Amino acid sequence: MGNIHGHLLRIATFGESHGPGIGVVIDGCPPRLPLDLAFVRSELARRRPGQSDLTTQRKEADAVEVLSGVSEDGLTLGSPIALLIRNTDQRGSAYAEMRAAYRPSHADFTYDAKYGIRAVEGGGRASARETAARVAAGAVAKLILRRALGAKVTAWVESVRDIDAPRPAKVPTMAAIEASPTRCPDKAAAALMEARIREARSAGDSVGGVIRCVIEGAGAGLGSPVFDRLEADLAKAMLSLPATKGFEIGSGFAGARLMGSEHNDAFVRKGGRIRTATNRSGGIQGGISNGEPIEFRVAFKPTATVLREQDTVDRSGKPAKLTARGRHDPCVLPRAVPIVEAMAALVLADHWLRDRAQNLPIGRRAR
Amino acid sequence: MGNIHGHLLRIATFGESHGPGIGVVIDGCPPRLPLDLAFVRSELARRRPGQSDLTTQRKEADAVEVLSGVSEDGLTLGSPIALLIRNTDQRGSAYAEMRAAYRPSHADFTYDAKYGIRAVEGGGRASARETAARVAAGAVAKLILRRALGAKVTAWVESVRDIDAPRPAKVPTMAAIEASPTRCPDKAAAALMEARIREARSAGDSVGGVIRCVIEGAGAGLGSPVFDRLEADLAKAMLSLPATKGFEIGSGFAGARLMGSEHNDAFVRKGGRIRTATNRSGGIQGGISNGEPIEFRVAFKPTATVLREQDTVDRSGKPAKLTARGRHDPCVLPRAVPIVEAMAALVLADHWLRDRAQNLPIGRRAR
Amino acid sequence: MGNIHGHLLRIATFGESHGPGIGVVIDGCPPRLPLDLAFVRSELARRRPGQSDLTTQRKEADAVEVLSGVSEDGLTLGSPIALLIRNTDQRGSAYAEMRAAYRPSHADFTYDAKYGIRAVEGGGRASARETAARVAAGAVAKLILRRALGAKVTAWVESVRDIDAPRPAKVPTMAAIEASPTRCPDKAAAALMEARIREARSAGDSVGGVIRCVIEGAGAGLGSPVFDRLEADLAKAMLSLPATKGFEIGSGFAGARLMGSEHNDAFVRKGGRIRTATNRSGGIQGGISNGEPIEFRVAFKPTATVLREQDTVDRSGKPAKLTARGRHDPCVLPRAVPIVEAMAALVLADHWLRDRAQNLPIGRRAR
Amino acid sequence: MGNIHGHLLRIATFGESHGPGIGVVIDGCPPRLPLDLAFVRSELARRRPGQSDLTTQRKEADAVEVLSGVSEDGLTLGSPIALLIRNTDQRGSAYAEMRAAYRPSHADFTYDAKYGIRAVEGGGRASARETAARVAAGAVAKLILRRALGAKVTAWVESVRDIDAPRPAKVPTMAAIEASPTRCPDKAAAALMEARIREARSAGDSVGGVIRCVIEGAGAGLGSPVFDRLEADLAKAMLSLPATKGFEIGSGFAGARLMGSEHNDAFVRKGGRIRTATNRSGGIQGGISNGEPIEFRVAFKPTATVLREQDTVDRSGKPAKLTARGRHDPCVLPRAVPIVEAMAALVLADHWLRDRAQNLPIGRRAR
Repeated sequence: MGNIHGHLLRIATFGESHGPGIGVVIDGCPPRLPLDLAFVRSELARRRPGQSDLTTQRKEADAVEVLSGVSEDGLTLGSPIALLIRNTDQRGSAYAEMRAAYRPSHADFTYDAKYGIRAVEGGGRASARETAARVAAGAVAKLILRRALGAKVTAWVESVRDIDAPRPAKVPTMAAIEASPTRCPDKAAAALMEARIREARSAGDSVGGVIRCVIEGAGAGLGSPVFDRLEADLAKAMLSLPATKGFEIGSGFAGARLMGSEHNDAFVRKGGRIRTATNRSGGIQGGISNGEPIEFRVAFKPTATVLREQDTVDRSGKPAKLTARGRHDPCVLPRAVPIVEAMAALVLADHWLRDRAQNLPIGRRAR
Repeated sequence: MGNIHGHLLRIATFGESHGPGIGVVIDGCPPRLPLDLAFVRSELARRRPGQSDLTTQRKEADAVEVLSGVSEDGLTLGSPIALLIRNTDQRGSAYAEMRAAYRPSHADFTYDAKYGIRAVEGGGRASARETAARVAAGAVAKLILRRALGAKVTAWVESVRDIDAPRPAKVPTMAAIEASPTRCPDKAAAALMEARIREARSAGDSVGGVIRCVIEGAGAGLGSPVFDRLEADLAKAMLSLPATKGFEIGSGFAGARLMGSEHNDAFVRKGGRIRTATNRSGGIQGGISNGEPIEFRVAFKPTATVLREQDTVDRSGKPAKLTARGRHDPCVLPRAVPIVEAMAALVLADHWLRDRAQNLPIGRRAR
Repeated sequence: MGNIHGHLLRIATFGESHGPGIGVVIDGCPPRLPLDLAFVRSELARRRPGQSDLTTQRKEADAVEVLSGVSEDGLTLGSPIALLIRNTDQRGSAYAEMRAAYRPSHADFTYDAKYGIRAVEGGGRASARETAARVAAGAVAKLILRRALGAKVTAWVESVRDIDAPRPAKVPTMAAIEASPTRCPDKAAAALMEARIREARSAGDSVGGVIRCVIEGAGAGLGSPVFDRLEADLAKAMLSLPATKGFEIGSGFAGARLMGSEHNDAFVRKGGRIRTATNRSGGIQGGISNGEPIEFRVAFKPTATVLREQDTVDRSGKPAKLTARGRHDPCVLPRAVPIVEAMAALVLADHWLRDRAQNLPIGRRAR
Repeated sequence: MGNIHGHLLRIATFGESHGPGIGVVIDGCPPRLPLDLAFVRSELARRRPGQSDLTTQRKEADAVEVLSGVSEDGLTLGSPIALLIRNTDQRGSAYAEMRAAYRPSHADFTYDAKYGIRAVEGGGRASARETAARVAAGAVAKLILRRALGAKVTAWVESVRDIDAPRPAKVPTMAAIEASPTRCPDKAAAALMEARIREARSAGDSVGGVIRCVIEGAGAGLGSPVFDRLEADLAKAMLSLPATKGFEIGSGFAGARLMGSEHNDAFVRKGGRIRTATNRSGGIQGGISNGEPIEFRVAFKPTATVLREQDTVDRSGKPAKLTARGRHDPCVLPRAVPIVEAMAALVLADHWLRDRAQNLPIGRRAR
């Protein structure tokens, strides 16, 4: 259970990291949308391992095959879009010793507790490999948002371990973000982050960090008042990503230390529209977007795989020592950037569909 | 839309703060459960305004009526449990002037943007009044969890503005939490928090803070690997509460600053069970509970209503000044404690049902 | 479980026949719709027992209270609309003897098998009383359809036991249908049906029959190709009604006896629109409405309560004799007419919302 | 939308008849179930075109590939099971002329009306090819039911055009059903049906008919009282199949002609269990299975494709003549048998999961 996401734009993902492949079925995509496959591929390339020496060297071709839902001339049909990405690098031998013992802070133990069985190699469904399917689906959601609202989702690395990039005055461009293998648009901070990641790699250790994401152009009115608040669905989407430990919308935890008179966002008229003078609300008030940039942060823990001997137990509970070999990703942050964007886009596109269903003016339709 | 929560234990809430009443329909509750109505009432009493001079003086009797789903001798029938709480204190006059202008950092503007109409008095559906229905439903969820798993949900106020209570060595008792009107179990911190709240009240201002919540006894195996990770559903539930700005599971944002070798929770054998030596995972690994206490934190912004003149605009966008009168809640934290617990209990009970549906051993049933 | 219906226009019903009341929460209704409460009441009046001597004499005032979701001037707010109907006639004494034995072809035994507990009086949730909540919600759906599409749902009694009314050349008017207490618009057939129902009443027996329903003005494009075909959702909605045994769309079972060349509906151009020369498809092709009248039939078994001694067993399985006393409804068909319409309207309105979410042209919205 | 089925055992299907392939993602399958792939293949073989000269000669290898969810030793993992069936026979040339005009009683017109685009060749998503994915998923559901409840789903052809097989005294064996290419277990009727189908084939015409389905061993307690009645979900599942026009549970439309005293099923004690003397209820009372065989019938219209000139219009509404060439299936009934079984199994397995979630005794679980 739990492999289907969304209410109107629904995606069902499948696949283990070491099986034949992974993929996604996207149900509810509007018809007649040009499905820019090159864009889907470029998004997958941003998530792909082995982009730089900062990340895991696992090789994934990530060749995506469109199994359904798109016409010969590249338009969506309104039917489910199924995307399949074959696994190519299935070497499970390095995982042999993990069979015997639970890897600390991995999902090995909990999968066993829940299902009484697990696909050992690669962690099965718990592997970050699973997120490729999300990125593919998120690319479709981005195409919907771009066409429907002119909205854009931009994420970048804000912190790695103790290195915090200053908050930029404007949302950085894609070019600025992609300029560094860290995906931090601040050059000075990026250099320091790179050093931290290399240190961790050398030490067989790992580092975490924080990603900031901004959605521009979503307009006012997306979300809903109670359980499906826009920030609630964003929080769920982000905490559904592997290795995430926290979520903040707008002022976040720091906002909890302000006085109300400091925190409130005064309404003003700017450019003929009602806007807020500040954006501590993070673009969402009462669960509904207010037209300001939607802004949130996501905390990622350091990768659980470290190339050091660790204490653990085997399936029977007997103490064991475990030293990971296999591939090692000292920092997931740079590759998590497109994944955060993908989930944000899926949430937004779903809420856009939901909003127009309920709230467009009622009138006899033209057909 | 968005007024239904859960997948198997589903609740539908309704009601505006100044209409006839609010309530909830709970679908999917197991049958033959003694519905301890006194407990439901005591939970509502913990959320009720006017408990102390630290919170709003709005009077709410919160008398709950059971409309369905319970037998004459107090057992659940397996049919929907409908609970109705009449509104008694509907004075909307104080809100008259708010009609003309959007209250900063309230939902007035976004409701208008979305629905093109709004129930001005009390903010309609955006009012914190709505959470009483959640607390009532959450009480039922707590009864399920207690009977099914022996699990217990405990939340308390950890921070108010700049005052941070130290993290206690053990989960505090209900008595310790309820001993202070702040619902902070640390006496010294509670005294300082009380002072901060009184200062804010005097200044017509407001303060925010952080609530910590621990779920003990949930056992291993609740949650699921991908979209419906247990921490994802908890994050959504928490961010669906009014005034929340952040969520952390386990180590949270601070965890993002550690090295992997510092962060990992080593597995150990303790008391005949597989446990972890530390709990930076917050009781959840790979989206599934691991049997350790599930531990998370929620940030609340300072209340948006402040008794000071604020800049805003009216519906046409014309600049306006607004000074709230009406009731004023300088700090929602103490009353938010049972609400956080309620949402946590609803998420857990839902996942408990989902887990036993899929994962109990398959065998011909006894019937 | 199973007390929530719909995907975008979702209703949650609650209430047992002999508890405090029954009701419904409607989530997803578009805002700014005038909620014509007099219409809701008139629909409930059509379902109400005791309308004529043809039906049960149970008294139900069916006074509906709007608990939420509607502004003071009667417009929907976009928030959940909760409607409550108090039970007034709760005399359970006549049911005392039914406590001891399972009533044949009622839900007594299966509720016990499933829940291990049941609200004996009135059959709890299985009582036809539950359908009042559906009629109230259906009235709201009819208002949506009327305003959004100009669509109209009309049902009538086509058969009672062995009496079959001829199929009318045109959809009968509401006046023609309401003219007879049988709700059969054909006067001759209505007279015979009335006689059959009176015979059954005198004999302490009951009769079943068939209701035909036509939806005009839904337009083309509602429904979807695979699991949620429009006729599939209609079939589910109809078979979810108490006492229903069959459903036919268009040509139905008789269509299965035709040759393909006889059955196909030729496309023609009529009045500037593409239409079909015949309508054996019943207004739906490939799961999607084609603009012709949507036409279906629903079979109702004779009421299970008969005032005759019947063989049965008690909870322990011991043979018993049972003679119903209590109220007796010799034929549910006339009262089922508004219920069939209500469920049809709920299905259509839900699909209308779903269709415009996905299929309206994508463009930046006006807001 | 509408390509996901079920609540706990959820399937998402995808694929057009002339694209790369079709498939299904099954979410919620219990873990540790031996996935008998040979059985899945044998079920697909029963649905496959070209089995005999009675059906279409379209060649489909239907080689199924398991993309995920199954361990190396063939046990389900609890994660999504993705099954892919490549299309091999994609010749679209025969459909060229259909491009110009709407085929009568096909989905061409309605797809255009809804989506404004369609995959012309083979009808895209409306093609019966789509049902192969359902049969594959249904095979998994059958494996669940068999292991969990010992339940068995058996369907057979009861009528073809005007030929009605007598209702057998006992549920026929699979061998008896498979003995004739008609899948009618009554030899005499099967011979006549075969003749009718050959006549239709010779005449370039088509015939419809009725399938009866019986589920044995489901036990009492599956289903739910209101919207998700077991017969309601079965009706939806059946009417979601291409070419279906009607559904009957138990006594069906004929039951509407009986008196209540004739129709009621008396409870009796048989073999130590509470049973009913007759089964006009069709194994379901109050929406919940009562332990008797669940029995229903489904009407299929004659295939819309006939090799005769038909009147129609083109996309602009201009009158046109259309003579289908391409492949021609004079009667879908024999191949629909495994499809009916598949959908029935999916509904039952879903309700079995739902029932044990809510209604198993509550107690601390063993883990």
